[in-house]
This record gives sequence, structure tokens and C-alpha cells, in this order.
Amino acid sequence: MSAIGLEEMETPRLVIDMERMARNIDAMAELARARGVKLRPHAKTHKLPSVAHAQLEAGAAGITVAKVSEAEVMAAHGIPDIFIAYPLVTESKLARALRLAERIDLTVGADSLAGARLADASAARHGWPLKVRLEIDTGLSRTGVPYAQAEELAAEIARLPHLRLTGIYTFRGALLDGKPTRDLAAAGAQEGTLMARLAERLRAQGIPVADVSVGSTPTAAHAAAVPGVTEIRPGTYVYQDRMQAGFGVCGMADCAGSVLVTVVSLPAPDLAIVDGGSKTFATDVQPGTAPLHLQGFGQVVGYEDAWLARMTEEHGMVQLGPVAQAAGLRVGDRLRIVPNHICSTVNLHNQVWMQRGDRYEAHPILARGLLE
Amino acid sequence: MSAIGLEEMETPRLVIDMERMARNIDAMAELARARGVKLRPHAKTHKLPSVAHAQLEAGAAGITVAKVSEAEVMAAHGIPDIFIAYPLVTESKLARALRLAERIDLTVGADSLAGARLADASAARHGWPLKVRLEIDTGLSRTGVPYAQAEELAAEIARLPHLRLTGIYTFRGALLDGKPTRDLAAAGAQEGTLMARLAERLRAQGIPVADVSVGSTPTAAHAAAVPGVTEIRPGTYVYQDRMQAGFGVCGMADCAGSVLVTVVSLPAPDLAIVDGGSKTFATDVQPGTAPLHLQGFGQVVGYEDAWLARMTEEHGMVQLGPVAQAAGLRVGDRLRIVPNHICSTVNLHNQVWMQRGDRYEAHPILARGLLE
Repeated sequence: MSAIGLEEMETPRLVIDMERMARNIDAMAELARARGVKLRPHAKTHKLPSVAHAQLEAGAAGITVAKVSEAEVMAAHGIPDIFIAYPLVTESKLARALRLAERIDLTVGADSLAGARLADASAARHGWPLKVRLEIDTGLSRTGVPYAQAEELAAEIARLPHLRLTGIYTFRGALLDGKPTRDLAAAGAQEGTLMARLAERLRAQGIPVADVSVGSTPTAAHAAAVPGVTEIRPGTYVYQDRMQAGFGVCGMADCAGSVLVTVVSLPAPDLAIVDGGSKTFATDVQPGTAPLHLQGFGQVVGYEDAWLARMTEEHGMVQLGPVAQAAGLRVGDRLRIVPNHICSTVNLHNQVWMQRGDRYEAHPILARGLLE
Repeated sequence: MSAIGLEEMETPRLVIDMERMARNIDAMAELARARGVKLRPHAKTHKLPSVAHAQLEAGAAGITVAKVSEAEVMAAHGIPDIFIAYPLVTESKLARALRLAERIDLTVGADSLAGARLADASAARHGWPLKVRLEIDTGLSRTGVPYAQAEELAAEIARLPHLRLTGIYTFRGALLDGKPTRDLAAAGAQEGTLMARLAERLRAQGIPVADVSVGSTPTAAHAAAVPGVTEIRPGTYVYQDRMQAGFGVCGMADCAGSVLVTVVSLPAPDLAIVDGGSKTFATDVQPGTAPLHLQGFGQVVGYEDAWLARMTEEHGMVQLGPVAQAAGLRVGDRLRIVPNHICSTVNLHNQVWMQRGDRYEAHPILARGLLE
């Protein structure tokens, strides 16, 4: 692939500033080293084997994915240690995971006895043990065994002969006592403490728990500081985004991801229409949602009072405040917009344009759209 | 491609019921014939040349797309008549459009004098006239010249020597007097009337306006009934969806698109977690948004009180009412969920599985992710 200059760039295109990305990768690796925990980044954010390799080179112990199909692509591109942080509950997915486990160090999630028994039966048929971690619900109410039932389920899974229960994991993001919060120190401490205490109780029952895995970009630093936590799994940090800047985890100048767009219409002094809408920018982190109450779906770089206020599928309605209006935008001008949520924005694009200085190079997002 | 049975299907997968799709295609073609207007479906919904061909075979006069890159793919697969309903305002996109216009019947959008002059200059350099339609803002406040300024701009564009101004077009969806509405008859009548009157005024000035193009799936039937309207451009109708059923445009039994998912966890009696979240189901039509106030992001087929209530990226939280709870779901069971908005949901998937009876066949969504 050959790099091109800005003047050759079409729009809309997703751009990643490689210097910022490298700084983000190093900063989280250093944080994990300083806290004495393993770093296992979630690849959901970038979905790119090349970025996963950069994370491993900086010190990550392995990577995390959500789907078997993502693990297959990452393994095919040389990633040797993968945790599928998702309960696998069907024979076909377990068979695919077991085939992968022949070639790489693979661990999968489990959160129910039904799923664990099926995994055990699959591993028995396959003639190969399967490493599993038990997922714990620490307040997000999605997957994960309810916290109060975790000891009983762990004991049952530990008895299944073809599974190796290696640890416990949770995800809950910026949550405190079940509610969205900006108090990341308290959220991370609670998350880490819940998990470390559970691990101790399991060990007291004779269940070996090597891995106590927590964390998300907002809570990683605080959860990792809790004694007994052994691993963090942040994803977003690699690119950072407006949501993380809102949490104070990073500054806007740390956001490596933005979308280059063109102003296609200026129907009113306070309104610019750009050529990217809800098929270009994610809509899962809505304006106004607690705890951040972000204004709009994205921030225009260099115009402090310009936001991506509304979208239809291919149109972005940028609201221009007085400062932005004074800049005198014209039809055909280009803007860069930092999205609220980079992970789901990356997922909309077929390729990412890696920027180094004033050169841009396209990289197909190999694991994009791999849902299975 | 060979078809497979349901038992071989992985999840999550986007499924289109081909019988329902065929009925939807025929119904809209019949509506256009009955009203005496041309049908130019927006391909944004399916992004598939094969479906576009089916629409043409049923009587559509051509297709609509939003992006040059979509037009290129559709043209490469034999679609002979395409309207890019989007203002092209950069030399590179205009050059691509002009190259396409050598091979197919192509029309592009314009909504500013700056854009039209650039298009005129590009066409002059290319030595080939470019057909344009003027986009009119009839209340949605996105692209489109403000209604009151349309006559002046149309006159200026009509004087540009290398452009051929062939008509006017608008899009506003279910809007009445600038506000979201469920009164589709009034919305469509207003939309059609605004456009037909403008066309008359332009013709009175000596500007030839052949095409008066309106419409969206919710308003098509009503806008098409207004004398002077010549064309409708609905998109969603091909698959229909929960939003359209909410408008009363179709029934849930007309929705051709659904996502097949697996229950991966049952942490509480009223909560099932499925293996599709905001990377599988679109989030642009949020629960509770006016005018429909839909409950959740999708409806579970066959369980009247089960909705996709919350999502994270790869997890769907299905809220189970008493009827659904009584069904006794188990981990590993499969559900079908009809999304609120099929267009943006299709856009998340790399392939669609076309279902005929109990056989499923994968079709890559060729124009997916083509944003340029």
C-alpha cells in the first residue's frame, strides 16, 4: 500500500493519527506495568491484527475479542494468545474455538452451567481441554453469572473434566452501585474489590483462580490498583474518543481517531451539512446520555462551538456556534470530527486511513463485521 | 452459492424473507403505476445490485443512491439509470460522476450555486454535459436549498452551459409543518403540493422541470397522489421494518428483514441476553423517539411482549414480559428480532442471508460501507 497526501483523500474517511495511537498504546502498557497487572486489550476497538501486534510489542500479554470469528482472523494473522470474553453456548462455535485452541493459547468465557456443560461435552468429543473463565455480573446486567451465585457455579464448572477453569472476569465500564458515574476512582475500586474478594472465596473453596480480570478504559487505572486483580482488558484507550475525554481519561488531543468530512451544504448561518451521517458516525452513545451528557454525536476539531448535532443516514448536521460561524466555512471545505464512540464508529468503515505526518495509508479493517 | 438449512446457520445473521421482499417490491410498483408516477427506489436500504434489478424488473424506472461509490458498484453490475440524490461539491467526486455518465444514464443532485458552478466547470473540462436535479428543503433542514430561495437558484443553475437541469427533488420523511408526525396523508400531501407548486413557478419562468421527485416509504402513497408529482423515491419499503409498521405503512408480517440471534445467557427471569448488540442492530432509531415512541430497538418475532431493550456492542438485552417468560427460553435457543430500522441495520452486516422456505443463501452486501 502506498501513502497519499491530504489533497488526494476522498471523504468521508476514518483517519487514525499513528503518533497518538502509539502514545496511547505505550501509556496503557506503562500503567499495567506500574500496577503489576497483565494487559489484555480488547481488539473490538480497532479490529486490526496490525494494531494488536503493536499492543503485544508494547507489553500486552495477549488480546481480548468478543466473537469466535474475530479470534479466527486474529489467529490467522499471528496473534498467539486470545481470550474470547463471551459465553460460547452452541456446538458450532465451541467446535470452532476448539479447533483454534489447537494452534494458539485460547480461553473462552462461560456464565451458565448449561453453556459450560456443552463446552465440556464439545471438548470431550474434540479430545482437547478447553480453558474457560467464569464471567461475573458486577452490576451491568448483561452476561455474567449474578455475583451472589458465582461461587456455586464456579464449583460446578471446576468439576467438569474437560474444562480448565483458569479465572474470573467482568465488564461493567463506568458504573458505581449499578448506576452510570463519573467517579472513576470509586467505580474502579468497587469493580476490583468485588472481583478480588470473590477470587479469594473461590480459592478458599479449593477452586484455583489464576486470573482476576477486570477493567475498561475508564476504570482500568483504578481497578488495576486493587490488590488481587491480575489483568485489565481496556479497548477504547488505543484510539481514545470523545466519551473518554468526557470522563477525563484523556484529553481531546489524545484522540487518535477522527472522520474527515466535506461540507456539502450551508443552508443557514448556524448549520453546515457534511457528507457523513449515521452510516459514518456511530449513534450508540447518544447526546445527553448520563453520565457525560455529551453535546451532539461528535466534536469538530479546531472549532470549539461546532458539534455534529443531528444525523440522517448520509447527512451530518453540524451546528455552528458564533466562533465557528466567524470562520466563514464554504461549501467544499473539509472538517475533522472526533466521534463520541470510536469503537462502533470504526465498525462502520471498511478501511481505516493511518496517518503519519501528512501521509495517509489505507488498511482494510479485517475483523469488521465479523459478528459470529 | 449453495443454500443451507436453518440448523447450519450461525448467529447473529441478517435474514431476508424473499417472498415478503417480492411482495413489497410488487406492491410499491403497483402503487406507482396506479398513481401514474415513476418509481425510483433508493438502494440505501439493500445496497445490493441483485435487489435493484428485481425492483427494475417490477417496473422501477431507475434507482437512487446517496454516494458516487454506490453508483459505481450499481453501474458495474448493470444498473443503467441512477440518480445520485446528493449534492456533489468536490472535483474528485464530480470527475467520478462524469466518468459514470459516459456509460449510464446518470443524474446528480445540486443545492448551491458554488456546487453547481464546480459541476459546470467539471463537465466543461470533461466535454460531457451533466444532468442535475435541484434539491429543495421542504422542512427537514439538511441539504436542499431553502424553499424560498429555490426559484432564484434554479434560474442561475439553468443558465450554466454544461449542466442540464432536469428537475427538482426533496426528502423529508414523515414530517408535517416541520415536525415529526404520524399523519402521513397530510405529510405526503403537503410534501407533494410544495414541490408541484414550485415546479409550476419554475416552468412559468421558462425553466424546464421534467422531474418532480418526492417521497419516502411513509409518505410515498400520499405524495404520489398530488397532481404534478412525477416520481417517488422510497427505500425502506423493499424490506419494510418496525418503524414503518409503527407508521401503519405495513404490518409486522410484511417485514422481510430480521436478525437471527442466539440466547447466550438468562441471568434473570425477565432478561435474556442475545449475541447481537449495537454492532448487529442499528441504534439510529432510538426507543421512545417521536413520533412513534417505539419500545426498544427491535421486536422479538413470536413473543409479543419481548423487546430488545438495551444493547452494548455485542450484547443485546431482551426484556421478557409474562408471555415470553412463560415460553421457558433456554440458553442456546434462537430468536428472530425485527429491527426498528432495517436500512442502517443492513449497513452493519457484511452479508445478508436470503431465505426461501427453509433454505438460506449468503449474498455479500456489495455496496455496504461505500461512504464516498
